[in-house]
Amino acid sequence: MEHGGFLSYKKKDEVLIDFSSNINPLMTPKGLKKALSASFDNLLVYPDIRYRSLKKITAKYLKCGCENIVLGNGAVEIIDNFCSLFKRVIVFTPSFSEYGLRALVHKKPLIEIPFLSDFSPDIEGLEKKLRTGDLLILGNPNNPTGLRIEKNTLLQIYAIVKKADAFLLLDEAFYEFCPPDYDSISLFKKDGYKNLCIIRAATKFFALPGIRLGYACTSPETVSALSKIEIAWHINAFAEAAAPAIFFDEDFIKKSKAHIQKERDFLLENIEKYGTSGEIKLKAYKSHCNFILLKVLNAKDEDALKFFEKRGILIRTCCSFKTLGDNHIRIAVRSHKDNCKFIKAISSKNSK
Amino acid sequence: MEHGGFLSYKKKDEVLIDFSSNINPLMTPKGLKKALSASFDNLLVYPDIRYRSLKKITAKYLKCGCENIVLGNGAVEIIDNFCSLFKRVIVFTPSFSEYGLRALVHKKPLIEIPFLSDFSPDIEGLEKKLRTGDLLILGNPNNPTGLRIEKNTLLQIYAIVKKADAFLLLDEAFYEFCPPDYDSISLFKKDGYKNLCIIRAATKFFALPGIRLGYACTSPETVSALSKIEIAWHINAFAEAAAPAIFFDEDFIKKSKAHIQKERDFLLENIEKYGTSGEIKLKAYKSHCNFILLKVLNAKDEDALKFFEKRGILIRTCCSFKTLGDNHIRIAVRSHKDNCKFIKAISSKNSK
Repeated sequence: MEHGGFLSYKKKDEVLIDFSSNINPLMTPKGLKKALSASFDNLLVYPDIRYRSLKKITAKYLKCGCENIVLGNGAVEIIDNFCSLFKRVIVFTPSFSEYGLRALVHKKPLIEIPFLSDFSPDIEGLEKKLRTGDLLILGNPNNPTGLRIEKNTLLQIYAIVKKADAFLLLDEAFYEFCPPDYDSISLFKKDGYKNLCIIRAATKFFALPGIRLGYACTSPETVSALSKIEIAWHINAFAEAAAPAIFFDEDFIKKSKAHIQKERDFLLENIEKYGTSGEIKLKAYKSHCNFILLKVLNAKDEDALKFFEKRGILIRTCCSFKTLGDNHIRIAVRSHKDNCKFIKAISSKNSK
Repeated sequence: MEHGGFLSYKKKDEVLIDFSSNINPLMTPKGLKKALSASFDNLLVYPDIRYRSLKKITAKYLKCGCENIVLGNGAVEIIDNFCSLFKRVIVFTPSFSEYGLRALVHKKPLIEIPFLSDFSPDIEGLEKKLRTGDLLILGNPNNPTGLRIEKNTLLQIYAIVKKADAFLLLDEAFYEFCPPDYDSISLFKKDGYKNLCIIRAATKFFALPGIRLGYACTSPETVSALSKIEIAWHINAFAEAAAPAIFFDEDFIKKSKAHIQKERDFLLENIEKYGTSGEIKLKAYKSHCNFILLKVLNAKDEDALKFFEKRGILIRTCCSFKTLGDNHIRIAVRSHKDNCKFIKAISSKNSK
């Protein structure tokens, strides 16, 4: 199944509510359109090849130094560049399929370590398999499981990575959706981000998948190593112009976080309550994120897809995520109205 | 020296006219801003991961099939992907420095063959050095020399490339600025673009360096090989939205071509006439393009840079282009008014 978009997905004459794409339902900050229109003339010049202004603004948002900033044509480009720099790539499964894909493009051996049954990282397995020169890519929170790595576990993993002289690439594209626990950029500041990089992106939280703006925080040495392989002018002028309009809209950021927390709880509580009362029986896993992984208890993911489609809802089947098999689906946290429709669909035996 | 932008370059309190950046002086087509404002909502969805609509529009503009289209985050990304696919990279020198840079990033041996003294390709040299699995990258017209490859020479090169089972990557980013001679996309249609790819871009002719839109025409087999290594969602939503607004503005295309032809002739004639009468003595090389390579006869390129800066003009020194040494500069064809200022600067002994 192809990657869905955020807006309602049209199937024949019917409009489906898209629960498959995990993007902020509050959409983009209000000031963005104005900022982009104003930047029109910037298209007529080459972007600053060093992206000095964009790096400065991003550093202010992430609360790190300019010299720590890496930019990408989306987070995927940063992941890709990292894969090219290291000997082998290690991932926990299930996780975002692009990690493994980019490793294979660069012909790097890919080592997959299954998460434990509660989807926490298998520390012993990692310790056994990790070697010098390895790149460990870890979603935090992880997609599709939706879990943050606990602070102590993360510190433990970092210690293992440093000991092996490997590298830890944290993909935190969904960071802002999570309850406040710890900020890895602040947590690893004292280590100078050695053997470590933390990726974030405008794609999910600022609902801008089309603008292609990924950014990351790492050591100046790693910034320099990446700069040698980055493609010239890889960030477009609109992404450059968007940054100041989105990063400092505190009202948008606050409202988005509150909305997701409230609606995630609403969905989890109601799936717990009604998930096994309808035709399709579902069990929700815990989530820290703006999406929820569900186990389909009495059918396959494809059956669930059809079931929800009939009820005007598009969900994400998870068979493409390794180790999940054919009985998991993922849904996004959307508006309260949309979320109610989802709950109605699972709870009513007679719906449609 | 860093890559210049198109708009006037400000130095202290002084505004320099930028002859260093070779972008269409007629700027972008008029309908673009409207098309981009209208596309704002598309930022909220992921671009189509297969870019079907953009490929269709690009194929229509290039007059080839959709199945022949490759897209890039600028032409440089396409060049980069090609470098990763082949064993060695061959370039003629002097040429665009990114060719060699991208080869080195992918750790591919780089073979440099100097152009002959009239800047035409050294066919014998190529025949001797080309091997199976090589990628030959050739600017057509070439930057900074500004020359199109003659049709028969190009056919000869293609025959050599096919015989060796190598690959010819034509970088035609400046194609639309050239006098109508032949269209390589039409010329190689009968060959099905086997062992061949023709790159073009919105950057120069449509004056959109910030939007990052490169495109190319090649065989479906090569399209498929590239698709396996391309980064997901590498083209941003604005580039997608811009294509229909720029490709079919025939009035803009016609006026731009006519302007460049007329003003290139104006510059060449007047440099011929006055080039050796002033303080800095210049000889212009022939050009088919929107820029002109000049030899500085009585000084170094850095002296010429200072000379022109004092007269409110920014030129491009060419010492970064291999084989040109330190006595060449490049200027862009600009508006008639700006071009007159350039001629005035070279012809007047008493200017400033």
